[in-house]
Amino acid sequence: MTAQFSYETLTPTAFLDRSARVFRNDTAVVDGEIRRTYAELRDRCLRQSGMLHDLGVEPGDRVAVLAPNTALMLEAHYGVLYAGAVLVSLNTRLTGPELRFILEHSGSRVLLVDDSLVSLAREATADLPDVTVVADDYEERLASARHRYVPLGDERSMIALNYTSGTTGDPKGVMYHARGAYLQALAMVAHFGLTSDSTYLWTLPMFHCNGWTFTWAVTAAGGTHVCLPKVDPVRIWELVQTEGVTHLCGAPTVLASLVDAPNAGGIDHRVVAAIGGAPPAPALIERCTDLGLDITHLYGLTETYGPAAICEWRSEWDVLPEDEKARLRSRQGVGNVVAGELRIVDAMGSDVPADGETTGEIALRGNNVMLGYYNNPDATARAVPDGWFRTGDIGVMHPDGYIEIRDRAKDVIISGGENISSVEVESALISHPAVLEAAVVAAPSEKWGERPVAYVTLRSGASATEDELRTHVRSQLAGFKVPDSITFGPLPKTASGKIRKVELRDRL
Amino acid sequence: MTAQFSYETLTPTAFLDRSARVFRNDTAVVDGEIRRTYAELRDRCLRQSGMLHDLGVEPGDRVAVLAPNTALMLEAHYGVLYAGAVLVSLNTRLTGPELRFILEHSGSRVLLVDDSLVSLAREATADLPDVTVVADDYEERLASARHRYVPLGDERSMIALNYTSGTTGDPKGVMYHARGAYLQALAMVAHFGLTSDSTYLWTLPMFHCNGWTFTWAVTAAGGTHVCLPKVDPVRIWELVQTEGVTHLCGAPTVLASLVDAPNAGGIDHRVVAAIGGAPPAPALIERCTDLGLDITHLYGLTETYGPAAICEWRSEWDVLPEDEKARLRSRQGVGNVVAGELRIVDAMGSDVPADGETTGEIALRGNNVMLGYYNNPDATARAVPDGWFRTGDIGVMHPDGYIEIRDRAKDVIISGGENISSVEVESALISHPAVLEAAVVAAPSEKWGERPVAYVTLRSGASATEDELRTHVRSQLAGFKVPDSITFGPLPKTASGKIRKVELRDRL
Repeated sequence: MTAQFSYETLTPTAFLDRSARVFRNDTAVVDGEIRRTYAELRDRCLRQSGMLHDLGVEPGDRVAVLAPNTALMLEAHYGVLYAGAVLVSLNTRLTGPELRFILEHSGSRVLLVDDSLVSLAREATADLPDVTVVADDYEERLASARHRYVPLGDERSMIALNYTSGTTGDPKGVMYHARGAYLQALAMVAHFGLTSDSTYLWTLPMFHCNGWTFTWAVTAAGGTHVCLPKVDPVRIWELVQTEGVTHLCGAPTVLASLVDAPNAGGIDHRVVAAIGGAPPAPALIERCTDLGLDITHLYGLTETYGPAAICEWRSEWDVLPEDEKARLRSRQGVGNVVAGELRIVDAMGSDVPADGETTGEIALRGNNVMLGYYNNPDATARAVPDGWFRTGDIGVMHPDGYIEIRDRAKDVIISGGENISSVEVESALISHPAVLEAAVVAAPSEKWGERPVAYVTLRSGASATEDELRTHVRSQLAGFKVPDSITFGPLPKTASGKIRKVELRDRL
Repeated sequence: MTAQFSYETLTPTAFLDRSARVFRNDTAVVDGEIRRTYAELRDRCLRQSGMLHDLGVEPGDRVAVLAPNTALMLEAHYGVLYAGAVLVSLNTRLTGPELRFILEHSGSRVLLVDDSLVSLAREATADLPDVTVVADDYEERLASARHRYVPLGDERSMIALNYTSGTTGDPKGVMYHARGAYLQALAMVAHFGLTSDSTYLWTLPMFHCNGWTFTWAVTAAGGTHVCLPKVDPVRIWELVQTEGVTHLCGAPTVLASLVDAPNAGGIDHRVVAAIGGAPPAPALIERCTDLGLDITHLYGLTETYGPAAICEWRSEWDVLPEDEKARLRSRQGVGNVVAGELRIVDAMGSDVPADGETTGEIALRGNNVMLGYYNNPDATARAVPDGWFRTGDIGVMHPDGYIEIRDRAKDVIISGGENISSVEVESALISHPAVLEAAVVAAPSEKWGERPVAYVTLRSGASATEDELRTHVRSQLAGFKVPDSITFGPLPKTASGKIRKVELRDRL
């Protein structure tokens, strides 16, 4: 059957094409003083594509972007694709040498740079003469460029290359295909009820899984992107009011910073907040809910275009006490509407019992799983040993079919032969009213092999002693799970707001 | 790239697979006294598939269903697909010989029949010995059948065959592919905000474009299907309250019957009503809105899986007067989120000016367009002369990119060389407070070629004379558009609630 009138390639640029027709005069993007309509956004993206062509970019070439959450970064999510090229969104918190590795590994031909990051870009590209850097000449080049629209031949072509943070070894390039991005974006529209009245605040870095595909999903719905170059909790609460923000996403640490802001709360409209990137403590969810945020918990990885799973809320839970609701909401949940099956498997790849107790590795497959690691077939084969992608996360399958993470495989603490879930101990710590954030890692122990130690940030103005917190944890968990020590102070974090446990371990 | 862990065929059975995992104990279907969970629904559908296999159905075979909107009909939308077969949903208002034509043309091997339609089925199959009829033995056969799940090899395979009503000539079989059904269903979820809390009332026949793909969309969201074997306005308003109905769809005549019901209105929750299948008069939309129904206007054809277009509401219209809102809502709108481009083309296939005045034929393409007409390549070639499917509907493109139907090509009245839109005259008639429904057709005229004549149904308890209505139309439209005669009484309708203008013309 070759009836081409009934076939179009699934690619996220189709969403901008449609919104520039339907919502042509509506605000597509707000970036500081800049407000642009959907017609303007598409015009600029098509010209960005033409500009890339002028710079020698051919279909299939890689184009990197180094920018915070600005209009430039959003435009690259369409302009690079319109050129038939592959988008490499760079983590702005990486060092020059780290960026250099990614630029070289990806073979990027052009690097688009935000004004604020020019010196970092120069450092990264100092000995990469083949990389063309476009920085403060971007607007000028755009103004003189023509529209260029390269149709995508195969919807399973790579359109984006996202490098994992690589806590061990070199970063790996995760290959996204157009079909996966399109479907995952539609799933986000459906699950979050995005419409043309939605206003999405960019509290999540767009370089993180292309902003969990919200770069494309918000456009699909015809909503408004509100750019936010820097996570500033006070500014976020201001924008929620002044721009009428309806949706935002963030890692638990970002939500924790919102909870702790002096101007938190006071919302007079519905704000849906998606939390993901690390397991959120039930106490954090409860605090967000108290502030009027409508929290949905998502779970996924770079390899799954971000949120492969969603903790679908069940109306029968409405009647439960708030703390029980928060506990249920903190589970990672079920595959989203376009996802394939989510499994918890043992070392042999067989399903573990759905008893909420037996742990195994979270495994999945589906249209929203990466094509593989770029130029790294060995790593791909290790990650997908039998047709199921292994996440590296350890979890349980509850009898109701919802999964819950117990820990990252590498974060499990094995003390005297007993497994201690760092997530569980952290949740116990955060349930203390004075605690804002907590991280628990394994310290080497001659007697026990490993022992848990904790790092804790207190809420502003709150106080608590180490003994007090140990007693609090002891009231909830078995004695052997209580941390041997608790250190107070700020926690080291990745650009996407995850706590850098590797750094805490290094301190030991 | 053959990374199969990142590829699954897009097919609507995936939605039932997921909802049977996620919403396993939630109510999937209500049919009179019957209430079944998603786990039960999937179990029955997999056993229906096994039953079909026992009856000799092989992948690719056609399986017909003759049933009102009952649980059987819904189950066939999954069971037949699980068997790898093709679903032929039959219009229950057809005659025995008409059904016989479809059964023979489609080569259906099995006919599943609701108890209420057994004698019609016997008549249709009297001389078709190769068609196995399953009727009152359905439950017994199901009980003894085993699960059978035939994976779909190619997502562009035919999964459903829907025969057009065929006002002229033999009905044509419209071929649906799995990918189109999956994507169109996702679009319905997104546009109508279907969630697991949604309750969908089956006021639209499931045999009409597979219920505009809501047979699959409601399942994708994990909502509840409430079956309704017969459109009974009083019963509908009762079910809206007792079952907490949140969504329903229907042709303008169905909505008109709801407006006119003695127990209309009094809703204490949000009810989203999609109207489509024929152009709705603004006055009807206004009356529905007055009753608390949240109206969205959809446009499409059997060839486009139902609603290819949606009249997307724009928040800037919120401040307009109610009659102006209703007029904007009565436009057919823009392509839905998965649709390709919608065009208005002239006889040469070129776009007409977007001036809201120049008429042309509505043309479209995309993943939600049929594969073609079954065993009828000539008809397919005529419908798609140049890669764009021609709808046969005449419309205009407004400057804001929204389309509006002026008429079916065959319904345009040409009087003294002037085109008269039957839709326009009908809307003028319906704007009179006493008028419930109106149909305007061409009567042959020696002097003018054709002249408009009207058939009108008054609202219950209301009265109006022919002169009064002619004066009313005259106050809104040019004199030559005023119908020469107005006949009062009920209007003949198709099974999907469209007014059978062909029958009215035959009367002349």
